[in-house]
Amino acid sequence: MKPFLDKDFLLNTDTARHLYHSYAADCPIIDYHCHIRPQEIYEDLRYENITQVWLGGDHYKWRLMRCAGVEEKYITGDASDHDKFLAWATVLGKAIGNPLYHWSHLELRRYFGYDGILNASTAEEVWNLCNAKLQEDGMSVRGLIRMSNVETICTTDDPIDDLCWHQKLAADASFKTAVLPAWRPDQAMDLEKPGYLDYLSKLADVSSTSIASWADLKAALRKRMEYFAANGCTLSDHGPSQLRFLPADDDTVDAILKKRLSGQAVTEDEKAQFKTAFLLFVASCYREMGWVMQLHYGCLRNNNPAMFAKIGPDTGFDAMGDYSAAADLSAFLGAMESAGSLPKTILYSLNPNENPSIVTLCGCFQNSEAVGKVQHGSAWWFNDNFQGMTDQLSNLANLGYLAGFVGMLTDSRSFLSYPRHEYFRRILCRLLGQWVEDGFFPEDESTLADIVRSVSYHNAKKYFAFAEK
Amino acid sequence: MKPFLDKDFLLNTDTARHLYHSYAADCPIIDYHCHIRPQEIYEDLRYENITQVWLGGDHYKWRLMRCAGVEEKYITGDASDHDKFLAWATVLGKAIGNPLYHWSHLELRRYFGYDGILNASTAEEVWNLCNAKLQEDGMSVRGLIRMSNVETICTTDDPIDDLCWHQKLAADASFKTAVLPAWRPDQAMDLEKPGYLDYLSKLADVSSTSIASWADLKAALRKRMEYFAANGCTLSDHGPSQLRFLPADDDTVDAILKKRLSGQAVTEDEKAQFKTAFLLFVASCYREMGWVMQLHYGCLRNNNPAMFAKIGPDTGFDAMGDYSAAADLSAFLGAMESAGSLPKTILYSLNPNENPSIVTLCGCFQNSEAVGKVQHGSAWWFNDNFQGMTDQLSNLANLGYLAGFVGMLTDSRSFLSYPRHEYFRRILCRLLGQWVEDGFFPEDESTLADIVRSVSYHNAKKYFAFAEK
Amino acid sequence: MKPFLDKDFLLNTDTARHLYHSYAADCPIIDYHCHIRPQEIYEDLRYENITQVWLGGDHYKWRLMRCAGVEEKYITGDASDHDKFLAWATVLGKAIGNPLYHWSHLELRRYFGYDGILNASTAEEVWNLCNAKLQEDGMSVRGLIRMSNVETICTTDDPIDDLCWHQKLAADASFKTAVLPAWRPDQAMDLEKPGYLDYLSKLADVSSTSIASWADLKAALRKRMEYFAANGCTLSDHGPSQLRFLPADDDTVDAILKKRLSGQAVTEDEKAQFKTAFLLFVASCYREMGWVMQLHYGCLRNNNPAMFAKIGPDTGFDAMGDYSAAADLSAFLGAMESAGSLPKTILYSLNPNENPSIVTLCGCFQNSEAVGKVQHGSAWWFNDNFQGMTDQLSNLANLGYLAGFVGMLTDSRSFLSYPRHEYFRRILCRLLGQWVEDGFFPEDESTLADIVRSVSYHNAKKYFAFAEK
Repeated sequence: MKPFLDKDFLLNTDTARHLYHSYAADCPIIDYHCHIRPQEIYEDLRYENITQVWLGGDHYKWRLMRCAGVEEKYITGDASDHDKFLAWATVLGKAIGNPLYHWSHLELRRYFGYDGILNASTAEEVWNLCNAKLQEDGMSVRGLIRMSNVETICTTDDPIDDLCWHQKLAADASFKTAVLPAWRPDQAMDLEKPGYLDYLSKLADVSSTSIASWADLKAALRKRMEYFAANGCTLSDHGPSQLRFLPADDDTVDAILKKRLSGQAVTEDEKAQFKTAFLLFVASCYREMGWVMQLHYGCLRNNNPAMFAKIGPDTGFDAMGDYSAAADLSAFLGAMESAGSLPKTILYSLNPNENPSIVTLCGCFQNSEAVGKVQHGSAWWFNDNFQGMTDQLSNLANLGYLAGFVGMLTDSRSFLSYPRHEYFRRILCRLLGQWVEDGFFPEDESTLADIVRSVSYHNAKKYFAFAEK
Repeated sequence: MKPFLDKDFLLNTDTARHLYHSYAADCPIIDYHCHIRPQEIYEDLRYENITQVWLGGDHYKWRLMRCAGVEEKYITGDASDHDKFLAWATVLGKAIGNPLYHWSHLELRRYFGYDGILNASTAEEVWNLCNAKLQEDGMSVRGLIRMSNVETICTTDDPIDDLCWHQKLAADASFKTAVLPAWRPDQAMDLEKPGYLDYLSKLADVSSTSIASWADLKAALRKRMEYFAANGCTLSDHGPSQLRFLPADDDTVDAILKKRLSGQAVTEDEKAQFKTAFLLFVASCYREMGWVMQLHYGCLRNNNPAMFAKIGPDTGFDAMGDYSAAADLSAFLGAMESAGSLPKTILYSLNPNENPSIVTLCGCFQNSEAVGKVQHGSAWWFNDNFQGMTDQLSNLANLGYLAGFVGMLTDSRSFLSYPRHEYFRRILCRLLGQWVEDGFFPEDESTLADIVRSVSYHNAKKYFAFAEK
Repeated sequence: MKPFLDKDFLLNTDTARHLYHSYAADCPIIDYHCHIRPQEIYEDLRYENITQVWLGGDHYKWRLMRCAGVEEKYITGDASDHDKFLAWATVLGKAIGNPLYHWSHLELRRYFGYDGILNASTAEEVWNLCNAKLQEDGMSVRGLIRMSNVETICTTDDPIDDLCWHQKLAADASFKTAVLPAWRPDQAMDLEKPGYLDYLSKLADVSSTSIASWADLKAALRKRMEYFAANGCTLSDHGPSQLRFLPADDDTVDAILKKRLSGQAVTEDEKAQFKTAFLLFVASCYREMGWVMQLHYGCLRNNNPAMFAKIGPDTGFDAMGDYSAAADLSAFLGAMESAGSLPKTILYSLNPNENPSIVTLCGCFQNSEAVGKVQHGSAWWFNDNFQGMTDQLSNLANLGYLAGFVGMLTDSRSFLSYPRHEYFRRILCRLLGQWVEDGFFPEDESTLADIVRSVSYHNAKKYFAFAEK
């Protein structure tokens, strides 16, 4: 019987324990993909209570509460913070097997020094303990980041963002963590959306480029990329609702954009042609600038129209899609490669069934520009649990080259979620340790140490090529 | 070395053994989905020999025999019951890893007191032992059900069924098990089938409603649902060959039905429109009445046309489909939710690849009407084996809320299959025990006991809300 | 801690060790599917150095090197054999979890007597040791085959091949291993390919049949099948890029072929109709002749157009597809069954997600013509690793009849790859041993021994029905 969540949590062999404690635990964190707000870091935000920190915007927790039959009042409604916390604690107490059980208890241990179990009967005690602790000096946003040994943070930013908080943070020598922007141009690509013309006019403003054609749009985007690069950006992200490769020449794309600018709706095919051209164009820029391209796909969003109408997107109503993407993905990557413009790329599908086809497809687009130039990204969102992360790592090792993996990210809106890197590293060391102790790989200390440190830290540092703060 | 199928079968940790023997073993069985005939219960049928019980209609066993190269004569043909049993025993003896190996031996132990192994060399001994045992008093259908501690059985019934056997059973106070109907209106929905008009005329008769329009059909269905409800029904089941969401207004649906009533064939689109409307209509009734809707999909049926011509459907020639259903499923659930008419729903796909997308989709349609209002159902049919059931439970825990799961059903045509509930509970306790002993969850007796008893029994009792017998 | 790759490699229980060493290890090898050249066997080729043997044409290794960021110069370029080996050794040294790590070390142990670890620091030592060893008498192609206890080899041959090397080998009584042709008519089926007319004219020549119609083509193919059969062929293989069932009558197919013969291009539908007819025709011949049909599908080929232009196909740029094939596959098998012309068939998909649907579909087409008449083939290509092979075996056992499985093949271009059979047998014994020691199956020596020997050797021998050499 291993004790619950002790210092050797998830580490079930001597080799795993040795690898984790000697080589993984002290690596700094590079959190190259998250959704925290740089303003909150600059202003060094503090929290009144644990409900604000934990339940303010965390749709993972909201969703679990709904599954357990909790009234919406205690989730996004007008119940008191205290009562919301009680409702959450009651649900969490029985959430065996759900990653939130591990994450929440890791956070209680690492930030609040609470070694007990959170459930209905301890909820009051934890509520009081956490709220008191939150008043302590080190518990501001900057304090939490410092405590977590975070070297670099990449936020998620729209091309029209002025990056002023990134600039202020860059200028503040007292804060050692680099906080860099990442370029996410979904709004510039999604021409079918109602607000698209408004968006373009904002983009025109910030880039001082009037946008009346496809060439104009490209020029405006290019200017903004240069602006982002000047502010330390080295990576981009895309979250297409569906990947469909439908190439068209520039004249066709120009006509489609002009049609949209004139206020008309575009057809499904025109939408696909425009988005294909958009992705190919920005990819070519990324490659020139040495940026990394991230592609996140396979999500079915906003499935509950009734709740969407009430509380909007990103509130816990998304799911995994199950459509076939491999052929289109291959066509995209092949077109970029043929044009000599394939950047370093990380692919993420929300559906874990896609893991084997993604890793084998990545293997078709490698070269000496980088180790693992085209990579399968870390287990994403729903898959970010013990089984999903183990499967992603095993699959990558079986079908590709685990030692070149750039590793973990939080993808989080919370300043408490850095223990997910610890969780990942423990799972990595568990897997390697198991293989060694089963006689699947030799007990070769220096190679194993090298792999652990590379995947935990060094690969990301090298791959993303951030400037030093 | 654990002995084969001893009292601690599948229970590989102290925690698993403790949870199973202390909390799971004695829970009554709620078998909320099966295909047994209520008449056989009322008449308290007896069997002459083990071949009648085991091989009379069990296409799982027939299929395995065919895979092993057995002649059809010994499967559904005219060989003697004795020779069929010998052929079956010979195949079973080598069926390592197949769930029939476990189920059959559980049945031999629990009902026949046979602790040995069934294979070619023991077949005669087992044949004699079982046939003698079948003559004993307690071995009638009612005896087998009593021995199995079954509290509630839900059969599978067509809207035109008169439910007379359910009524007789309800009136028989000497039999403690509640035998309730479940509403399965596939025949009323499958308008493309050759016998559809005949079916409608029977439905018109039993509902005293002439059916000449979509409004008539709805009225007739509604009357029959009320009749079913009056006979204790609280759940429905649907087995659509493919889920395709194609909404249409009532006039369109009415025209489609009238076209079919006039003897014409309908197009693929019309079929999909009619079925979409049908499902949305009955779902809204289910919600009003507080019924549960079950959706079983993902099956490719009757793949072998030559054998279908010879021996018909449900004889072992079905397979898993592999088409993408998530987007249509999302659209169905979303349309019901928007209309305020989404009932409690259990989703089952025959293809286990769909598990992650189903569980995450369920998470988008929860609220406080029930714990786990929209659920992923227990591993279905082919997946009903150690690995498939473990995967379904793990997946539900990782991506949803295991503690709210309504648990196991037999889906069986046999009165000997209640040990599948035992099998399920052992697998559940094994999984929970493993997590606790690995330090993934605290050794918290009361929470674990609560989860085990809830998933084994209490959740189903509450979710289906059966009237007391 | 088990030592790396010792005599009990992968065998983690007493039962596994006993089964492997007592029953599996000494079974001869039937390698019923590979890509080695019979000429090289007849001429008893020798190698100058280990790079020629290992890296000459092995796209598995090339791909791994590219994933690790190695320059193409050291892969397929003009670097020296010595430097290529060093580059490979450096990559392999960190390839934890990749099957090449196991395969390469098994080959070093079994053929070169090297018990150490290959990595950057041992590369020179291994280079020298292997090259010296390659000069020894037993290290020619025939020596390697003899050392590996190979009873039968089936190569992969085009209908126009004259099979002269097979004939010479058949006539050489000094070489005990049977080297038989296998019929792979992809070139005769792929009518959309640019070289199709040239191919047909070669086929016309070797069959002495002018080909101006579909009837002519069938006649020519039939003649060549007879020729192959006379040279010991008993199995075929097909690698369709996509399985699409679109039946057409002979007149339509004839018109399509004539259109193509006239130099015109065919439409997508015509292509599918022609290929459907082609497959149905050859399948009916296979069944008459008692041949086995292999279908390999689910591959996305030549994904990197830039590299394809430089170094052609089969160089490491293929990936898994993820499209839905079950419905078409069912239609193909059903059409053959209806026509009474379904041969023994082995199905392989490159995407492991298809495993469950394939095994259940196989179960729909069994009869007493053979044990496991329609089978799911061994884990193919990318899946040929510890996890993939374990999953394929478990899935087959859970959903079908493992004891009837025809087992492993190398699918290799190398004469060093026979240890993959050893790898497979160790995994088989590990799985069975685990089940027995967990109490999932009784400790029944004779049954287990029978299953191990059947799957390792006897099933294939019986199923393929090779003539004795």
